[in-house]
Amino acid sequence: MSTDATFERTTNFETDAATLIEGLPGLGMVASIAVDQVTNQLALDQYGTIHSEDFPPVAAFADGRVRDSVRVYGGTDPAVLTLQSDVPIPPDSVGSLSRCVVADLAESFERAIFLAGAPADSESEVGDVVGVATSDDLEAALTGAGISLADGSGVIGGVTGALLDECYHADIPAAVLVVRSNPYIPDPGAARTVIEDALEPLVDFEVDTEALREQAEEIQRQKRQLAEQLQQYQQGDGRKPTGTPMYQ
Amino acid sequence: MSTDATFERTTNFETDAATLIEGLPGLGMVASIAVDQVTNQLALDQYGTIHSEDFPPVAAFADGRVRDSVRVYGGTDPAVLTLQSDVPIPPDSVGSLSRCVVADLAESFERAIFLAGAPADSESEVGDVVGVATSDDLEAALTGAGISLADGSGVIGGVTGALLDECYHADIPAAVLVVRSNPYIPDPGAARTVIEDALEPLVDFEVDTEALREQAEEIQRQKRQLAEQLQQYQQGDGRKPTGTPMYQ
Amino acid sequence: MSTDATFERTTNFETDAATLIEGLPGLGMVASIAVDQVTNQLALDQYGTIHSEDFPPVAAFADGRVRDSVRVYGGTDPAVLTLQSDVPIPPDSVGSLSRCVVADLAESFERAIFLAGAPADSESEVGDVVGVATSDDLEAALTGAGISLADGSGVIGGVTGALLDECYHADIPAAVLVVRSNPYIPDPGAARTVIEDALEPLVDFEVDTEALREQAEEIQRQKRQLAEQLQQYQQGDGRKPTGTPMYQ
Amino acid sequence: MSTDATFERTTNFETDAATLIEGLPGLGMVASIAVDQVTNQLALDQYGTIHSEDFPPVAAFADGRVRDSVRVYGGTDPAVLTLQSDVPIPPDSVGSLSRCVVADLAESFERAIFLAGAPADSESEVGDVVGVATSDDLEAALTGAGISLADGSGVIGGVTGALLDECYHADIPAAVLVVRSNPYIPDPGAARTVIEDALEPLVDFEVDTEALREQAEEIQRQKRQLAEQLQQYQQGDGRKPTGTPMYQ
Amino acid sequence: MSTDATFERTTNFETDAATLIEGLPGLGMVASIAVDQVTNQLALDQYGTIHSEDFPPVAAFADGRVRDSVRVYGGTDPAVLTLQSDVPIPPDSVGSLSRCVVADLAESFERAIFLAGAPADSESEVGDVVGVATSDDLEAALTGAGISLADGSGVIGGVTGALLDECYHADIPAAVLVVRSNPYIPDPGAARTVIEDALEPLVDFEVDTEALREQAEEIQRQKRQLAEQLQQYQQGDGRKPTGTPMYQ
Repeated sequence: MSTDATFERTTNFETDAATLIEGLPGLGMVASIAVDQVTNQLALDQYGTIHSEDFPPVAAFADGRVRDSVRVYGGTDPAVLTLQSDVPIPPDSVGSLSRCVVADLAESFERAIFLAGAPADSESEVGDVVGVATSDDLEAALTGAGISLADGSGVIGGVTGALLDECYHADIPAAVLVVRSNPYIPDPGAARTVIEDALEPLVDFEVDTEALREQAEEIQRQKRQLAEQLQQYQQGDGRKPTGTPMYQ
Repeated sequence: MSTDATFERTTNFETDAATLIEGLPGLGMVASIAVDQVTNQLALDQYGTIHSEDFPPVAAFADGRVRDSVRVYGGTDPAVLTLQSDVPIPPDSVGSLSRCVVADLAESFERAIFLAGAPADSESEVGDVVGVATSDDLEAALTGAGISLADGSGVIGGVTGALLDECYHADIPAAVLVVRSNPYIPDPGAARTVIEDALEPLVDFEVDTEALREQAEEIQRQKRQLAEQLQQYQQGDGRKPTGTPMYQ
Repeated sequence: MSTDATFERTTNFETDAATLIEGLPGLGMVASIAVDQVTNQLALDQYGTIHSEDFPPVAAFADGRVRDSVRVYGGTDPAVLTLQSDVPIPPDSVGSLSRCVVADLAESFERAIFLAGAPADSESEVGDVVGVATSDDLEAALTGAGISLADGSGVIGGVTGALLDECYHADIPAAVLVVRSNPYIPDPGAARTVIEDALEPLVDFEVDTEALREQAEEIQRQKRQLAEQLQQYQQGDGRKPTGTPMYQ
Repeated sequence: MSTDATFERTTNFETDAATLIEGLPGLGMVASIAVDQVTNQLALDQYGTIHSEDFPPVAAFADGRVRDSVRVYGGTDPAVLTLQSDVPIPPDSVGSLSRCVVADLAESFERAIFLAGAPADSESEVGDVVGVATSDDLEAALTGAGISLADGSGVIGGVTGALLDECYHADIPAAVLVVRSNPYIPDPGAARTVIEDALEPLVDFEVDTEALREQAEEIQRQKRQLAEQLQQYQQGDGRKPTGTPMYQ
Repeated sequence: MSTDATFERTTNFETDAATLIEGLPGLGMVASIAVDQVTNQLALDQYGTIHSEDFPPVAAFADGRVRDSVRVYGGTDPAVLTLQSDVPIPPDSVGSLSRCVVADLAESFERAIFLAGAPADSESEVGDVVGVATSDDLEAALTGAGISLADGSGVIGGVTGALLDECYHADIPAAVLVVRSNPYIPDPGAARTVIEDALEPLVDFEVDTEALREQAEEIQRQKRQLAEQLQQYQQGDGRKPTGTPMYQ
């Protein structure tokens, strides 16, 4: 059984009635890339951090400084919280993270939007978005924003599925946006589309995605480089880098 | 040791003297397909849900809305309960699920019929049904319905075996119908046969299986598509979809 | 750490001074086959069952009816108890089963004979029997019955080794008969030899092994069939049948 | 969950305001080799030992005498502590080791420098050093010593990442020096460079690395020998030596 | 976490000031073979047994009779205890065994000699012995007996390393004799050399090793036979015999 994760608030501005947008590492890194862009373009402040004994015992860093791996950013105009992580959430930790978000963060937001990548069967499918909601209001909001509901029945797994299931049982309005994307490498193109076609109409904000397009191309270049390093790593010691460069 | 599963009742109609029909995912999806058809054709209402910390932390959905993964449906004419799941029950959870069915649901039904697929050795064997019972009455009922008893000795595993063993030790009349089916892909043909040749005479109801035949053909088509996706998934990241399309 | 196994007595006849003969599934199925024949030919009654949370959560059946997987049979003339199982005892459960036999069953028998198959190096070795005893009396009994003692030193593993070790530490007279048998498929020929050459003189009873010879040939035929099914199973879903046909 | 590690102090000299330099076994053995040289050249005394039930149950030795596997050395001029281990710290133990360093050793030092090897993509990259700090002061110290800050974002894993993360959360000033080195065999060349280019200006001491160059060549020779033994080990019994010769 | 092992004393003669000689199964079986010879040639009596829930649940036997797997033998002239086992000590049990030896047996001996095989790189290295000690006295005793100290630094693993580490922390004088031996098959030649060149001068006793030479040749023959059986086992059911013939 996993231990508890805890949210530590590092600012004191109020964000009630905010929309929580989740951008945790997953298929195609599409959620990470899209939400990182939202955080940067809206110039959100760090709102707090989530910590758990279950998370990998690693040190995340940016620009030469150590930082917490799992962070929440926020702003009031528009009223938005974002959830980001420098490391993939291990399967054993998704339960404690989900319970933490519902228990400790729920007062800070009134609805949650989760992002999940799904493998595109073809290039033309990339960027297609369908939604699944937990409530009548959010179902109407999805439809009103021009987002198709997912056909038929199915299941959503990973950390997104756990967060969605936890919100559903806690009666927190939540929706997941499933974006078709390249399953093999980070896909900033799909990230850009989910922002423009789904997040902007649904949350009602504007995000400059020209910067994303450039960042996407830069990431594409880095990832090609990483893929080559990955091959060398695996030939060397069998360890896999985790999406961002891993030292030691 | 697994934690407990709990049944939460979501309606208040009475179903005493009902027959519980189990349709959990398993070999050939034959139980799932057959019982889904029974639930739909008899227009059963959702009777309750079963939840456990042991179940996979995923969000199930249908037609764009999140729902509980493991559900019980019921009706009074005929008096039938069905047990269905959008996700395969993991081996670690079959014990807690079985104890939950016997402890929390036993007052709602007077006998249980479990369905299990067994691999057919040839096309001509598909749809052959044999039964195993826990009591004299159900053995007589099987024979009276024209269902052959299983020859020789053996064991029944999986979630069906665990449910049958739990009922046997709790003195709840129960029988399993073992249906020969295609072990590799969903087999609505076998599902249709077990309804017509075994469930209808045994439970004494009528279910329109023409719809099932069409649905079966549709599922066959979808599954061929899924098999192709499966291959792409596995080449991509090693994860396996679980019988229904899996996003994230 | 394993949980406890418990013996539940289902009859009330007395069997003091009885010999317990163990016939649990193992190499070559030789113990199972031999003891099944003893139980049938001596027309023993079911004496009780052994149950444990550790045992596989499966439903065993015979002739269309569910039964307990691990059963004890007994009779008074000759005074014999037999221990049989429809499923292999998993390694994690051999400890609790052994402690249960010594704690709960010890009053019902005065000595125990365990059967174990060992791989024959050649056809001519098949049926060779050597014995190992825990006490002077049983060592004399082995020798008196014309059974050679095992040469040199070694160890006996599996459920038989655990039972023998438990009896040794509990000062219960016990012996193991190690029978050379075909390690790849069930070997009723070795089973027949261990009955005629070892069990009959040691326990002082008569068992008709002509029926065993026929049954052996029938099992041989079924096992060839099972081997073919096994291959199909493994190509299909990776699950292995466990010696008897496994549905679901 | 891991048990606790404990620090036992074996001397009584004071080392306040010291710099702790970590040299635990890792990629390229670069941290081990560099810090071993620092300990030897500065003629540091053994300051204490760290012990945990989680550490591998092995006996470390040097020159025919058993010693503790994980040792802390120290001196007052310059004020330096070093942390060394004869065995790689297993992943399950990095948490308890990190907590021990922060809880039991923190009074003995005022800042910590961790060393980590990163695989060099080419020969010309070997010896390149970048730094990551937890505080403004240490960031300035890195820059002042001519050490580049790590570009972009990423994560640092292994025992170094765990120690850095623990210091970060305990507000202990800490920095990691990431050294590009040969990922396949011990790299004393990279160890020499990190001493001369980073440790000497950062900690303000002088260490004779001519001895290291010779030692490096000796280790290179021994490691080639070990690699041959490794191959023989693996063909023999599947066990792997752990960087130093392993008997039994 | 492992459970406790307990020593049960089966005789009442006193052995204070004795030397404990460990001969547990390990690389090349060299410790087992050498110490078995010491026990037999000195005609030591069984002194007690060590039992643990962690040890494999198997029944050991010799000459047709069950015996405890882990046994201590002893004598007073010379004052010697030997520690032997019919089964390899599993990695999970080395901790509890080591603690048992130090806690329950320490009053019966004043110093411990452990034997460990190390793979010889060539035929000419076979029988080379080096020593590692925990105290000044034993280091002097090693040197006085003409035994070289191990060069450089390293680690000693397995049950021998755990015993040595436990003695070191309990301040019990102990030494390990590392013998180069054939890593692939039992090596009675190395066992004979470690007796004549190291144990005899160190413990000051005489052991007839002519018998060992013959026994060695006999074991060589048996092991060639076992190797053939091993191959057949593995083709049959994937189980490995553990150095002595394994039935069931």
